[in-house]
Parts: sequence; structure tokens; C-alpha cells
Amino acid sequence: MTIHRVVILRHGESEWNKQNRFTGWTDVDLTAKGRQEAIQAAKLLAASGFHFDFACTSVLKRSIHTLWQVLDELDLCWLPTQADWRLNERHYGALEGLNKAETAERFGPQIVKQWRRSYRTYPPALAIEDQRYPGHDRRYRALSASELPLTESLEATVQRVIAFWHQEITQRLLSHQRILLVSHANAIRALMTYFDAISNDHLSELYIPTGVPLIYEFDDQLKPINHYYLGDRDDIAARISKVKAQAFNRQ
Amino acid sequence: MTIHRVVILRHGESEWNKQNRFTGWTDVDLTAKGRQEAIQAAKLLAASGFHFDFACTSVLKRSIHTLWQVLDELDLCWLPTQADWRLNERHYGALEGLNKAETAERFGPQIVKQWRRSYRTYPPALAIEDQRYPGHDRRYRALSASELPLTESLEATVQRVIAFWHQEITQRLLSHQRILLVSHANAIRALMTYFDAISNDHLSELYIPTGVPLIYEFDDQLKPINHYYLGDRDDIAARISKVKAQAFNRQ
Repeated sequence: MTIHRVVILRHGESEWNKQNRFTGWTDVDLTAKGRQEAIQAAKLLAASGFHFDFACTSVLKRSIHTLWQVLDELDLCWLPTQADWRLNERHYGALEGLNKAETAERFGPQIVKQWRRSYRTYPPALAIEDQRYPGHDRRYRALSASELPLTESLEATVQRVIAFWHQEITQRLLSHQRILLVSHANAIRALMTYFDAISNDHLSELYIPTGVPLIYEFDDQLKPINHYYLGDRDDIAARISKVKAQAFNRQ
Repeated sequence: MTIHRVVILRHGESEWNKQNRFTGWTDVDLTAKGRQEAIQAAKLLAASGFHFDFACTSVLKRSIHTLWQVLDELDLCWLPTQADWRLNERHYGALEGLNKAETAERFGPQIVKQWRRSYRTYPPALAIEDQRYPGHDRRYRALSASELPLTESLEATVQRVIAFWHQEITQRLLSHQRILLVSHANAIRALMTYFDAISNDHLSELYIPTGVPLIYEFDDQLKPINHYYLGDRDDIAARISKVKAQAFNRQ
């Protein structure tokens, strides 16, 4: 049996991770620490002997810059890459830009947790005239009106991420390409839900650390057979705890 | 008549431009000055209202990093891009790595000028076991033996660059995509030869400055109707003189 591998990487810390704001499709950049996290992830991958034939990211610069840092560190900046909106973070609708802790204080932590973690709940929608609506952004001009989100549930995010997986990744995996996928917390949760049939209850407790390579292994039928984070166990546990705490802490 | 535009950009100064060495397919990086040149080119493009839908480069990092700097400066890092070996610099065979002035002193300036500028002359070839042979480099593993060069004449460079133009660019232009092409002195000379039927004699006097956007305009049949460098006339003239002087000056 051939084992097919995908390395999944959440972008490094962004300006708004640091400010604890709902980011979604807002195109904020990495912090200096975020860039360092990307370089550290690349060093880990190099030390563990990972090689790549193809890389993909969202169209958001925190993921693209994470990818560029990784490719530079691996001396692979020539690698074929694809930036695709379907790997974007979940769209948080009218919450985008709001501080998470303030939002929790204002609306109550339960409804915010539901907006963030429940499978089918949509956060409050944007109005079409809102400057945050992706229809105003040139990079999304090829999308149909039904594809352009005013807000997204986790379920809606799962649908587009999985469509990307089937249209762009599976054939490459079966052709033995080694793939690096750089994306965002909820897009990665979407993939994990799909791979491992995680129940909606457990999904709400699934936290993805920034800048830690997540290795997924598949058999010849692309059935997931194993997955693990690469790196030091204690460091990874600390990073996951930090993400978990983030929702309800002030800066 | 619709005017179709391509912006062609030679990468910024590289480590070996600075050391005045034959570079070819050797994958040297930009200098700090080279990165600045890329940023300046992007500022010029932005100030002149240029927009892009697609960008392509060679698979060499001095071009890719030039492109990344430009995309970052234009806030377009999400743009679809393609890295293709056919936009590489001409392969200089066994001359790669040698200092140009020393080579001219050793072999005589006439033969070196002929190696550099005549249309059909091949510089001395690499042996296949030479570490510089591209067949040893993973990024070229999809190339056939006949595509992998041991050395290239300018004519051989023209052939692959023009194949790229027809296979990857013309259809995009006819679909009204605005294209940024980042490449190397001889690959750009190859394109200019093709566009403007420059005679081999005149070609040897065609010098391409680093980091200055070269705008080519085409009619609906993709016949070239105009081309010009973007920027200050005196600055451009000074840069061209510098490239011209480079061949026969020591560092």
C-alpha cells in the first residue's frame, strides 16, 4: 500500500489573532511572530524529511505569506502553487473586525460560542453595500452571487472546502504528488470533520494551533488512516491551550 | 480596437549581477538593492494605474522574489501565478559562475562577446555529470532529455521562450487578461526579437535594465504596435548604460 500524505498548516499569528478580533475574509497580514512560526514549521518539515510537489493556499495574505516563508526556508519558491478562495477562513459576516472578548461580553459568551462553534448557525449577515462584502473585492470577481458569502455557517465552509478537496487535491494525491495546504482554523476544521467524521459536538472542541504542521495520511482509496501534529508534544499542547483560551480572554 | 498589454520586468540586481558573473540557470538570490528595484518598479506601475490578472516568472528565485515584492507592493499576492522553466535566463553552459571580465581577459573580449551576444553560438557545454547540469535539479525533473540544456545559444533560448508565449500567454491576452511577466535579460531579448523582428546584428546591442517595467502593446491580432520603458528617461538611460558597460568592467 502506498501512503499518500498531505501536510496541512494553519497560517502563523496574524495582526488580528494578536488583537483577538474576528478576522474571516478580512485580509490582515502576519505579525513578525507569525512569520517566525512559519519559518519554524518549515524547519521542522525539513528536519523530518518532508518534500513537496504542489502547494495551495487561500487568497488571504496571512496564508500566502506563511506559504512564501515556508517555501523560502525549504528553497522551494519555484514550486507550483495555487491560491483559491475555497481555502479561505470561514466568513464571519458582520462580526468581522469585532473583538472576540468584547463581543462575548456584549452578546453573552453562549451565543458567541454558538456563532463560532456550532455547525449550522450563521453569524449576523453583512449588508451587500457593506465594504466588507467580498463582492466589492476584485479577487472574488469570478465568483457567482450564490458563492459570495454575506456570512457563513461552519457547514457552508465545509461544503466549499470539500469541493476544493475533490476538485483540486484528490487527483494529485492519487498521482503521488506530495501536497502542502496552508489555510485557516475553520477551513482546517472543515477538512478534519470530513476526513474523520467528527461529530458536531466534538467539532466545537477542536482547536487548531497556528504554525504547527498537521500530517494526514491516506490509503490508496484516500481513506484517512492516520494524522498527527509534527513537533514537540508539550509545545503543541501549550499552543492548543492558547487557542482554546483566546475566545474568552481580553488582550 | 482593444489594446492588449503585457508588462515585462527583468528581475532586480542579483548577487551575481553584482559580482559580474555568468549566472544563467544558477539560482542566486536578489541583493537588497535588487529587492528595492522591484519595489520601485511596483510603485511606478501603481502610480501609472496598471492592473493585473495573471503573472508569470521563471523558476529562478531572483525572478520569483522580484515578482513577490511587486505583488506585495501592489497588494496582489493572491494573483494567479505560474513559474515556468521556459522563462529562465539563457543557460550559459560551462561559463556559469565565471566572472565576465576575467573570462574576457582569458579568452579575449571578442569570443566572449560572441558567446554572449551572437545568435547561434553556443558557449562551452557542461558535462552531464557536472553538478550545474539541470538534470540534477528536482525542479526540472518533468523535462525531457532534449529539453534539458548543457548550454544554450540565444536561438535555443528564443525557441523555448516563444513556445511559452504561444502556449501560455496569447490565449490569456485575447481573453483580455492583463499580464505581468518577470524574467531575465536574454529571455526578454528573445521576446523582443520575436515581437519586433530585430536583426541579429541589432540584437547584440539590445541591453535590458534591471527592475524597469517594459510595456508592450498589441492589437487584436496580437501584432505588437508599441513598446516603451516606464519611468524617468534619464534614469532609464543610465541603467541601460550600466548594463552595457558591465561586460567589460571588473568589479
